[in-house]
Order: sequence, then C-alpha cells, then structure tokens
Amino acid sequence: MSLVIVGAFNFDTIETPYGRKERIVGGSGPYCSLAASFFTQPKTVGVVGEDFPQETIEFFKSRKIDTRGLEVKPGKTFHWEGRYGEDPNQRTTIKTELNVFEHFNPQLPQDYREADVVYLANLDPDFQEGILSQVKKPVLVVLDTINFWIEKKPATLLKGLEEVDILFANDEETKLMAKEINLLKAGKKLLQMGPSLIIIKKGEHGALVLGKDFTFGVLAYPCEDVYDPTGAGDSFAGGFLGYLDKVKAFDRESEIRKASVYGSVLASFVIEDFGIERFKSLSFPEIEERFSSLKKFVSF
Amino acid sequence: MSLVIVGAFNFDTIETPYGRKERIVGGSGPYCSLAASFFTQPKTVGVVGEDFPQETIEFFKSRKIDTRGLEVKPGKTFHWEGRYGEDPNQRTTIKTELNVFEHFNPQLPQDYREADVVYLANLDPDFQEGILSQVKKPVLVVLDTINFWIEKKPATLLKGLEEVDILFANDEETKLMAKEINLLKAGKKLLQMGPSLIIIKKGEHGALVLGKDFTFGVLAYPCEDVYDPTGAGDSFAGGFLGYLDKVKAFDRESEIRKASVYGSVLASFVIEDFGIERFKSLSFPEIEERFSSLKKFVSF
Repeated sequence: MSLVIVGAFNFDTIETPYGRKERIVGGSGPYCSLAASFFTQPKTVGVVGEDFPQETIEFFKSRKIDTRGLEVKPGKTFHWEGRYGEDPNQRTTIKTELNVFEHFNPQLPQDYREADVVYLANLDPDFQEGILSQVKKPVLVVLDTINFWIEKKPATLLKGLEEVDILFANDEETKLMAKEINLLKAGKKLLQMGPSLIIIKKGEHGALVLGKDFTFGVLAYPCEDVYDPTGAGDSFAGGFLGYLDKVKAFDRESEIRKASVYGSVLASFVIEDFGIERFKSLSFPEIEERFSSLKKFVSF
Repeated sequence: MSLVIVGAFNFDTIETPYGRKERIVGGSGPYCSLAASFFTQPKTVGVVGEDFPQETIEFFKSRKIDTRGLEVKPGKTFHWEGRYGEDPNQRTTIKTELNVFEHFNPQLPQDYREADVVYLANLDPDFQEGILSQVKKPVLVVLDTINFWIEKKPATLLKGLEEVDILFANDEETKLMAKEINLLKAGKKLLQMGPSLIIIKKGEHGALVLGKDFTFGVLAYPCEDVYDPTGAGDSFAGGFLGYLDKVKAFDRESEIRKASVYGSVLASFVIEDFGIERFKSLSFPEIEERFSSLKKFVSF
C-alpha cells in the first residue's frame, strides 16, 4: 500500500511583502511530499539538476520520503521566479526556466507501479497520462492542474478527467474548465466528467469539497503572518492524501472531511515561513493542536 | 427592550449576469429590517419620497416592523444604480441620486430612544453621531461603514469607533481602516479602538468574527444561483442582530456564534432573487433548515 507523488522540484525566487528569497527549494513535489510525510511514507517522483542540494534530499529521507523516484540529471534544476502583492491570492510569474524539467519523462521504479494512490501535480497533461499508464491498478488517481494547461491542452485534459478520482483545482480554474461562472455549478459539472470528488482551493478563503452526495466547506486557519503563500495548495494536497493513505478510507465521507481539514492545516503552516522552511521544525502535536483549533474556529 | 435600525431606503436599478431590474425597493434599511423581522420586531428609521410604494410599507408592517420612524418627505426616494460582473463580490456604481436622503436628519420617536440595540447602517459618520446622541442608554451600538467614509471622514469615523460595541465592515474596509494588509491583524487592531466585536464580511467567502478572546469563522452557504448580491451584508447584520435581540444575550460567545450563522443564512436567502423579493416568500422553518445545512456543511 503506498502513495506516489509526482511533481516539480524547483528553485524558487520569491518576493512577498515580508521579503525576498533567492533560489530556495520549492515546487509541488517537495511541498506535497513533505506535507504527506507527517501521516505516511510517500514515494516521490521528480527530476532535479546537479545543482540541487544534497542536504535537502537528506532532509526528505529523514522524513521517510522514498526518493528513489527522484532523478538527478546533468544540468540545472527548474527555476521559477514570482512575486506576491498584498493579496496573497494574487501572484505574478516573473520568470520560468524549465532546465532539466523540460524533458521530464520519468520511468517509475518497479514497486512504485503498485501504488494505491497516485498524485499528479500540475504538469503537462500528456506527461500526466504517460506516468499514469505505468501504474498498474491505482485505487485513487488524483490530479491537479492550472489555467495554463486548461487553455493550452483542454481536450487532453478533459479526456484525462475520465480516469481521475479526485481533482484539485482552484476556484478560477474550476470555472474555466467547466465554462460556468457559478463555482458550485462549475464543480458539479466537473463531477459529471469523471472525478468522484472535486477539491476547489480558494487560498486564504479555504476550500470547497464536492462529493457525489455531499458538500463540505473548510476554512483556512487564520494566520497573522503569511510570509510566503507558495506551496499552500500542494501542501493541502499532501496533508489530504497523506491522511487518507494513513487511514486507508478512500471513499468514506467522514474521513474525506477530516483529510480536507488536515490539508488546510498543513497549508496554514507552510505559509508561516519562506519555502519549505516551516516543515523543518513542524511536529505532529502542532498539527493536531491546529486541527483542534480549526474545529473550534468553525464550531457553533 | 428593542432593536432600532437606521438605514437608507432606496430604489435600486441593478444589473447582474441574471438580468436587469429597474427601480426596485432596496437599501440597508429594508434589507436589515426584513432580515431581523424573522427573529424580533425591529423599529426602523429612514426617509423615503412620495414615490415610495405604500404596498412595500404595508409589507414591512405585515412583518411586524415598526415603521413610525420612517419619514415620508416631499420629493423622490434615493436612487442607486449598480452593476455586478461575474464575480458577485465586485460591483460598480453607475449612478447615485440622493434625493430626499440628502438632508436625512431623523428625529427618533420617543420610545425609539429607549432602544437596547441601535444599528447604524452605512451613513455619513456625522449623521451616525447625531442619531446616536438621541438614544438614551443603548446596550449595544452597532455600526457599519464603507470605503467612501473611511477615506472622506477618517477622523470622525475613528473617533466614533470609541462608542461602538460591534463594527461591521468588509475585508477591504477593515484593512483600510486599520492601515494593515493582514486581515486578522487589521481586525485585532480595530478591536483596540473601541468595539468589542468586529464582524468582517467577505461576501461569498463568509465572515470572520473577532471577539476580545475568540475568533469565529462562518462560511457562506453555497448558492447555485446568485441572482442579485445586493443587500447580502445588510441582511447578514439583520439576521445577526435580530437573533441577538431575541435571545437577549449580547455578550455570550456561543450566542454570538449562532447569531453570525443566522446572519449568513439570511444573506444566503436574499441573494436568491432580486431586491427584497425573496423575503416575501421566506419562512422561519426554511431559515432553521438552512441553519442545520450550514452546520452539516462545515462539520468534521
């Protein structure tokens, strides 16, 4: 039984109202894998250049992340540069240097192909399909995407949805994919296209979780200091999937609700510092404490 | 024991993606009073022109709203014209004709001056002060405001806050008033300036309620058809205050949480149709049912 996470491993250069950091480790792979590692032992898939710090890989290993699926290739690691304004939900991409990521075409290690749960972070839909075809009998196929692919490869993406069990998208992407301005209607429309669960991320406003026969609203834990919003969505996915993989209850509504809250909790921690820094000091009791706080926060 | 609501009585011309309505009854006064009338018997204060429909006043009376504080003056009723795009949180004002509202200077009926709770909807801060001075010993002074007054009369507004118990503001206004980009920090800063409770309205994203020693997050009930977002904030305030006035528990945290949810529920109904239309068919059992749905919506 295992969770395989396929994502990008980046250097990020980030500017927020709290400061600027040059070439720090980021990307959907690290954020999602680290968040999941608080619940289970994820297998991670990605590619980095020779410039990627060995100590970060050691940190992944210390968190029991299986890194055999992380290729090191000659060349430079993917580099993204972005800026956030006063609204943490709005970001501007300044630069994208794909580098070794450009020809990312992973061959999964043999035992990875037995995975129960496969998470395909935001990647080219053709890549996503190629990776998925290597996994024998996944119980749960989980997909994330972004505007870029919705606009560039809509047909591949929508066709691919047929094989997806859980779709992660933000509110804007959900509306765009469904061609519907009302978020709830848009989510319900996507539920007809394959997935049995849609998780609509709304950044600082939390998330809306739509199942075939239930709707769940989860709030973001209110944070006084949002140092760096990068990775919140992928950390949400990691916390969500890590918890589900731990409890092995992939279609029980009560566990999906709890998993969503753990997702929100992990996201609330990662934004308290730049990059993956907060995960270095984070402990499981802190996660449990914030889970309880979030419960109290919404109780009436 | 009573709740006095001071607000604007308008004709609104509204365009949304669902259609256009010319000169329908709107304004903070009607929305707030009608929402409150499902819990208590509010006394309403406002001014209308001779063109204001008598049947609407009869409707207010049929909902047990005390309309002795509603003056009918020679001239035309306040007219506002606005347009909403696809995002219901964004609206554009096209026209504002103050008409009889320009010289609104209400003298409260004698028994109104004994009010326990006074709600001053978004009005000129000098007006708000003048009205408040007529009320003898209010238990709860509740204020709403908008960007316009924060920018135009900041000193009067901030000074006035000292006398306020509960402040309603949206997220943008909260940040603007506190001069702070983080919403939670901004709200906490305003808590130092007089109010013991800040209710930050976030439109379709719900509301954040900040007390001296608790924080409560309430989600908006997810609606598939937002016909007309006008009046959601005032209906929230009406539901909130109506419930508090009914249970007479103005500083009990558990009741403030419930009141906030009733506020959210009333707001979720009013947007299902144009203007105050939905209040004409709304029943208390429907309100209770949605209260329960909202509880289930956020439960984990």
